Amino acid sequence: MPGSLTFIGLGLHDEKGITLKGLEAARRADVVFLELYTSLMPGLSLSRLEELVGKPIRLVDRRVLEDQDAEPLIEEALGGRDVALLVPGDPMVATTHVAVRLRAERLGIRTAVVHAPSIISAVVGLTGLQAYKFGRTTTITYPEKGLLSEVPYRVIAENKARGLHTLCLLDARAEEGRFMTVREALEVMLELEEELGEGLLGPGTLAVGVARAGSEKPVVKAGTVEELMDYDFGPPPHTLIFPGELHFLEAEALKVLAGASDQALAPGKAVRPRSIEGEAREKAEKYVANLDFAFSTLEVHGPGPVGPEALNHVLDLAKRYHEDARRFLEAGKPLTSVAAASYAEGLIDALRLLGLVDFRWPS
Amino acid sequence: MPGSLTFIGLGLHDEKGITLKGLEAARRADVVFLELYTSLMPGLSLSRLEELVGKPIRLVDRRVLEDQDAEPLIEEALGGRDVALLVPGDPMVATTHVAVRLRAERLGIRTAVVHAPSIISAVVGLTGLQAYKFGRTTTITYPEKGLLSEVPYRVIAENKARGLHTLCLLDARAEEGRFMTVREALEVMLELEEELGEGLLGPGTLAVGVARAGSEKPVVKAGTVEELMDYDFGPPPHTLIFPGELHFLEAEALKVLAGASDQALAPGKAVRPRSIEGEAREKAEKYVANLDFAFSTLEVHGPGPVGPEALNHVLDLAKRYHEDARRFLEAGKPLTSVAAASYAEGLIDALRLLGLVDFRWPS
Repeated sequence: MPGSLTFIGLGLHDEKGITLKGLEAARRADVVFLELYTSLMPGLSLSRLEELVGKPIRLVDRRVLEDQDAEPLIEEALGGRDVALLVPGDPMVATTHVAVRLRAERLGIRTAVVHAPSIISAVVGLTGLQAYKFGRTTTITYPEKGLLSEVPYRVIAENKARGLHTLCLLDARAEEGRFMTVREALEVMLELEEELGEGLLGPGTLAVGVARAGSEKPVVKAGTVEELMDYDFGPPPHTLIFPGELHFLEAEALKVLAGASDQALAPGKAVRPRSIEGEAREKAEKYVANLDFAFSTLEVHGPGPVGPEALNHVLDLAKRYHEDARRFLEAGKPLTSVAAASYAEGLIDALRLLGLVDFRWPS
Repeated sequence: MPGSLTFIGLGLHDEKGITLKGLEAARRADVVFLELYTSLMPGLSLSRLEELVGKPIRLVDRRVLEDQDAEPLIEEALGGRDVALLVPGDPMVATTHVAVRLRAERLGIRTAVVHAPSIISAVVGLTGLQAYKFGRTTTITYPEKGLLSEVPYRVIAENKARGLHTLCLLDARAEEGRFMTVREALEVMLELEEELGEGLLGPGTLAVGVARAGSEKPVVKAGTVEELMDYDFGPPPHTLIFPGELHFLEAEALKVLAGASDQALAPGKAVRPRSIEGEAREKAEKYVANLDFAFSTLEVHGPGPVGPEALNHVLDLAKRYHEDARRFLEAGKPLTSVAAASYAEGLIDALRLLGLVDFRWPS
């Protein structure tokens, strides 16, 4: 009968980030594996961890877990042993863990997860920013063959448009010993701004850097991009947050817990790109008001050469679309409202340009 | 000199969810407080916790932390003692903790946080859904004076429009001993659907229920709303997830780890409301194509009574707006494209209705 495979989170920074139930599960296991490449745990010592667990621990790398589909672990479990895999942070946040777990389950191996602290919730505690105001999480990566991924820029823009904060995990390349710093991440973001030019961020934009979460002395610093570029966060791992709209308690927390200056927190520092919803509503409101004005000033020059029937037909159509535009706006359909109002504008502008009517648009 | 206040997370379910560094910090503290009202920890025993920590623990409730601004803790710390506050989950996810921490800092008391497992990352491990595909988190609450909060409905809709999953925390009223179940939460959501009628969810919508995360036997079940209503999740705490778009690995995980049927996972089960961005793009594409067709069939009936100059002026204007609409669409400005195309439509429709030109719209 196959044994089991338990994923045990090590939490943050060092071997004491594991929970009591995580440690018990590791002690109960017949064989204990460890991977350290999905996140950096600078304070972790393998020998101290082995002492805690009370048995030797086998370190596995990306090659074993990904290219070899975790074969050594699977074999042990298929041989009837209870296997533990210790992983940084909370298990399964790394996709690799999910793939290994599914493979094990398909082979009839029982699996379980023992949770641990994760950077995803730790940033909430460290910064005082509220958990329910974070949008989706993203990762800022080093360029690949000179190309930067636009994903973090898009995710931050999407979140900011909704007033939400963005947690940016930073590229970790354990094999190469490269762990992205706050400064490098900000350089990537400024380069993306240069390329994409949507005005999402600049030197004055508010951001928050976090270094060595879960350690005795984590560094948490809020300031403008410019300020953070020159701030000494110490060694990695680093994390970066772009706040959206700040509740007053959050602004206070960034001052007290993260040393933000009043200037860095000034309104408009956390850029809020306009949402297309808001843009459509504003446009629709303006267009409907323009038509109100135009119709109030409209004079017919006499039916002229085209005949009264044709002229009135076009005018009535324009009025109907004007009213539709107002109705769609009130019904929360600003896009349809914009289309209807623009169509009405086209109709009456044609009449005016043909010399059949006269009216003014608001200046 | 004031002492310190350390917030120590207890993690999930029982007293063994605390980390080794959390336990050490509690043991080092001069005075240890505990609050248990911000989340339910059904497996926690105060006496076992006291035994672990090695000293008596003082339980405080909402009244002390919120109405009295944590006065007893603050007093101890101002008296020079090192105070620990044990809290469910990861500290600071509850806003109360942030308020207490800021008050302490303002009074010159050093504060720190010791992280612990949180439901926010635990659901990732339990369901196999990917962390970076969750949008903002929301809470489903019991009606207040007969009124339901629309917030969860709006948040789920916003996330789903972007293909993102939504973690729904469920109302916890410790003082009243009421902890919302998956079934109650689904009833609230169906009632909101009834009220708001936007087609966000129905009996066939895919959802995932999680019960007692962090315990030895957590229950994780994916299925349609209808299936989950009748599923026995056992005692609280419960949590609910509405998945957005599923990557194939996520769909596989919901089958293997959460017993989802192929039917529940069929496309369209995870409702995806249309985003206004997508709607604007589709509309703009259609309008530009309509104008392509109209201009290709357009014939001038001779300048007629209005004179060739005026007629050509309007026609040229319409063509320019048609080209602008195409350009705006390509430049990622679908809203402006819709307005330009609609205006051009109005211009040429006026000419047609006045009998000056003839053309057809695509049928």
